[in-house]
Amino acid sequence: MTGDYPEALEEVIALLKRFPGVGRRSAERMAMALLKWDEEQIRSLGDAVRAIPDRIGRCPECGNIAPAGMSCAVCSDPTRDRSTICVVEEPPQLFAIEKGGGYRGLYHVLGGKLSPLDGENGENLALEPLLQRTAGGSGVVEVILALGSDVEGRATAVYVAELLKQNPVRISQPARGLPAGADLSYADGATIRAAFAKRYGME
Amino acid sequence: MTGDYPEALEEVIALLKRFPGVGRRSAERMAMALLKWDEEQIRSLGDAVRAIPDRIGRCPECGNIAPAGMSCAVCSDPTRDRSTICVVEEPPQLFAIEKGGGYRGLYHVLGGKLSPLDGENGENLALEPLLQRTAGGSGVVEVILALGSDVEGRATAVYVAELLKQNPVRISQPARGLPAGADLSYADGATIRAAFAKRYGME
Repeated sequence: MTGDYPEALEEVIALLKRFPGVGRRSAERMAMALLKWDEEQIRSLGDAVRAIPDRIGRCPECGNIAPAGMSCAVCSDPTRDRSTICVVEEPPQLFAIEKGGGYRGLYHVLGGKLSPLDGENGENLALEPLLQRTAGGSGVVEVILALGSDVEGRATAVYVAELLKQNPVRISQPARGLPAGADLSYADGATIRAAFAKRYGME
Repeated sequence: MTGDYPEALEEVIALLKRFPGVGRRSAERMAMALLKWDEEQIRSLGDAVRAIPDRIGRCPECGNIAPAGMSCAVCSDPTRDRSTICVVEEPPQLFAIEKGGGYRGLYHVLGGKLSPLDGENGENLALEPLLQRTAGGSGVVEVILALGSDVEGRATAVYVAELLKQNPVRISQPARGLPAGADLSYADGATIRAAFAKRYGME
């Protein structure tokens, strides 16, 4: 069919469509844009993508993204407080907390959250490693559960907290309340209710 | 900085940001999605991208996208009407017309449109090849200018029409009017005005 792109381009389009939020039209637009790049730029992208499995891996300690075969930047930093572990669902949440800049402890990437409807009952989550890292004698005294505030995230937090009761650690979660710098009129009802329920005295 | 991604991932993010409409956040999301693909899928994408310059080129006759070193699917189709050439800005417009299915002539891809403010005065457009393809003795009798209806597209159509006057060809452009199947109340004013100005008697 002359309305189809050449096979080599259709292959690229089919692969680009795998990205979240990229449909047929976006994939076509991206492929067209690629055709306008310099040959060298196209090869750079191909090489950079191709090299990902060789160059990027997971931190053997916490599951964060790390250079292949190495510990991540957090775990290999000797100045981090090794007595506190913050549990997150995936690396983007970890990077958001790092950008915030206030947290000096370690992390633990679960690799998802409990979602029985999607068939995730915890088998694919890094729960056993978390129990090992926080066992008696590990030196860990606090685990912060920084999981999503959606139903699955909250269910996961409850489940992980229950599991962690067998270890001698304090369990906490980040405060919920009004975001910094935002006008109260833009906050959703659940956030406002949480912020009022947890209100505290001014010093 | 521990809030940065590993260097190999930052490279991919920087390259993905080159795509139109892809900002830093989208590129990060795409890179994160890539990390969840199978190693084999990642390599397929890298290889497919890398192979583009070797596998995809431009049709030497019309400038359409084509397998490298070959004529495009339209020009190499012996059943196409070689007496009519439709001029388009870029390949996506050509593919849209092909998907429409009614047109049986050939194409000519200009490679852009006149845009003096962006420094495009026609030097990068395939104007000389168009004049050669439509010269006396070429067998071409009609040139359809299917260029954009924006200011640059219309200026380009006027300019190309003027150039083509030196050749013995009829020059036309697609009708403007109400799109098929759409409710009149959704049409913009310019389209409605054009459709009323060009109204025709019912048979």
